[in-house]
Amino acid sequence: MSERPITIALDVMGSDHGIEPMVEGAARFSLESGGAEVLLVGDSDAVHTALQAQRHDASRLAVIAADGGVSPDEDFRAALSERPNCSTNLCVALLAGGQADAMVSAAPTGAVILATSAGLRRLPGVRKTALAAVYPTERKHGPRQDPFALMLDVGATVHASAADLVRFAVMGSTYAQVVSANPNPKVALLSNGTENTKGTEAIVAAHEWLNRSEIVDFAGNVEGLDIPKGTVDVVVCEGFLGNVVLKMLEGVGEVVADLAKDAYARRFLWRLGLTMLSSGVRQLRTMTDWKQYGGAPLLGVDGVVVKAHGRSNPRAVSNALKVATKAVRGDLTGKIETGLAEAARSGWFDEPDEREG
Amino acid sequence: MSERPITIALDVMGSDHGIEPMVEGAARFSLESGGAEVLLVGDSDAVHTALQAQRHDASRLAVIAADGGVSPDEDFRAALSERPNCSTNLCVALLAGGQADAMVSAAPTGAVILATSAGLRRLPGVRKTALAAVYPTERKHGPRQDPFALMLDVGATVHASAADLVRFAVMGSTYAQVVSANPNPKVALLSNGTENTKGTEAIVAAHEWLNRSEIVDFAGNVEGLDIPKGTVDVVVCEGFLGNVVLKMLEGVGEVVADLAKDAYARRFLWRLGLTMLSSGVRQLRTMTDWKQYGGAPLLGVDGVVVKAHGRSNPRAVSNALKVATKAVRGDLTGKIETGLAEAARSGWFDEPDEREG
Repeated sequence: MSERPITIALDVMGSDHGIEPMVEGAARFSLESGGAEVLLVGDSDAVHTALQAQRHDASRLAVIAADGGVSPDEDFRAALSERPNCSTNLCVALLAGGQADAMVSAAPTGAVILATSAGLRRLPGVRKTALAAVYPTERKHGPRQDPFALMLDVGATVHASAADLVRFAVMGSTYAQVVSANPNPKVALLSNGTENTKGTEAIVAAHEWLNRSEIVDFAGNVEGLDIPKGTVDVVVCEGFLGNVVLKMLEGVGEVVADLAKDAYARRFLWRLGLTMLSSGVRQLRTMTDWKQYGGAPLLGVDGVVVKAHGRSNPRAVSNALKVATKAVRGDLTGKIETGLAEAARSGWFDEPDEREG
Repeated sequence: MSERPITIALDVMGSDHGIEPMVEGAARFSLESGGAEVLLVGDSDAVHTALQAQRHDASRLAVIAADGGVSPDEDFRAALSERPNCSTNLCVALLAGGQADAMVSAAPTGAVILATSAGLRRLPGVRKTALAAVYPTERKHGPRQDPFALMLDVGATVHASAADLVRFAVMGSTYAQVVSANPNPKVALLSNGTENTKGTEAIVAAHEWLNRSEIVDFAGNVEGLDIPKGTVDVVVCEGFLGNVVLKMLEGVGEVVADLAKDAYARRFLWRLGLTMLSSGVRQLRTMTDWKQYGGAPLLGVDGVVVKAHGRSNPRAVSNALKVATKAVRGDLTGKIETGLAEAARSGWFDEPDEREG
């Protein structure tokens, strides 16, 4: 634990729904005991106005004026380079300069990845950063019996070599230990079959590599079927695949909600049935509602970075701030660095080879 | 339409549940009007015994003795090469020799792909075959308002170049026209974003290529979110990705069914609610029940080949036989050949380049 309170830079611009849900989420978070302090980075007039409409603990919130933010509609590359003091860049600068311990942003994923890769160093041994997402599963995980698992990379980059995949495995395992309090997370590679010969060249090579690991509890390959079931605690894959899978889960959740709404509208008996079944339907909805999972951490950079969903509501923002606090408190970054250093010292990273897969 | 009745070779061995569901499915199919004739290829004693237990139309069923089948537990490569007259090989031989117009098999996917690629020529212009699967969607498709879409490749091969993907698009579009009676199917590439720059190199190149197509109604890229929603009629991707996505949809269906069963067991009020909601729950289950979709056609070979699910029940087998009949009646193979020849004649396949992506 640090001496001064944990401080989180919150990029209040760039969400799909404007600054209100961001500020409201921070206001809620400020009222909870044990929370960190939040720097609200954005258009200061608009932030003050939004804040006045919300109950909040002013002693735990400060506003930092920024030169706009990266809007979902604009070219984020241009926005970041033309406005060095835009909210996303400023959050990265606060984190890099040590004024903040973590940052949370709902700006477009590309903007968060680019700004952090420009402004933060990668941890030693990291070749590619990875965006990790918590997703709902049928099986419960860890001592807290959480109904979700972790998947990475879900889109920080497109391809991953074998060397990248094994590093993702170390980082994902560390994240599950620190944030999900799971002392011994089971890690698997996502492939098109469980046999060690199945998958792309990178997966086959990473499989062999992870089999020899003493750092990661490797459970072998899992298949698509295992994703919703939640057979393992951490699923490792390249960013392209992870992106498709994660968005698909989100789509399934929306379809389930649509069907339930349809049913609700149809007739009274339906409604009665729905009421009786409500805890079941709620369970289904909850399982597929990303809003409660609080955003996706970007792993491999020197600092805690949480990408909140572009459509975050106040609850999702507040949850993202909690996840960031937990990651800082558990020294996520330090532990990832230690894990990678141990793996390197043991010679584990030297083989089978370091080629791009 | 052919002069003699349509004949389908059914590989009754190799399913996860033995020959009974295969034979029962064929027996059911024989009783329906307008159906084709079925050659039951397998262990003839066992087939005759299983057949006697079922109502069937003997005039539409014949038994062809085979030297065993490829069981899900054995090495299919060894099985196929050591037993040239095993049921899967025999079905391919019947198709190649013209004694059958189509084959249906629930043997392991690898066995079906290997046996057909050894025994059947690929259609001119085809570089890689593709396994196409019908999957459930929220949105309805085509004039019949079917609640499902087509995805290919779901696992005939692992990787696909741009040149492969555009051929998959032509084959998938033709299949939707012939079997789903959709005169103008919308086809999209599965990627990690809708922009034409998103995805792997192969996807970006295929996108540009398909944009210039006069043969395929190309709708651009779709994302994971669009899969369950069913934004387009045909989703094109490489086999590795398609395999993960398809198995994941299957897993979601199983999780939904588990949750519903859980609820059912719990208490009376739940049960009452479930009864009232039954048509809604049935809708959800139906949407995710692959058994009613009747198997995945292998496209690009000279002949109609339908891979039924290893866990097929009699209904799934009967549906696979119907799909095969429809494909033969609609001259699927001839139409794919014509489509690819037209594309080649128009010079469409000559550019941007033929490199492996």
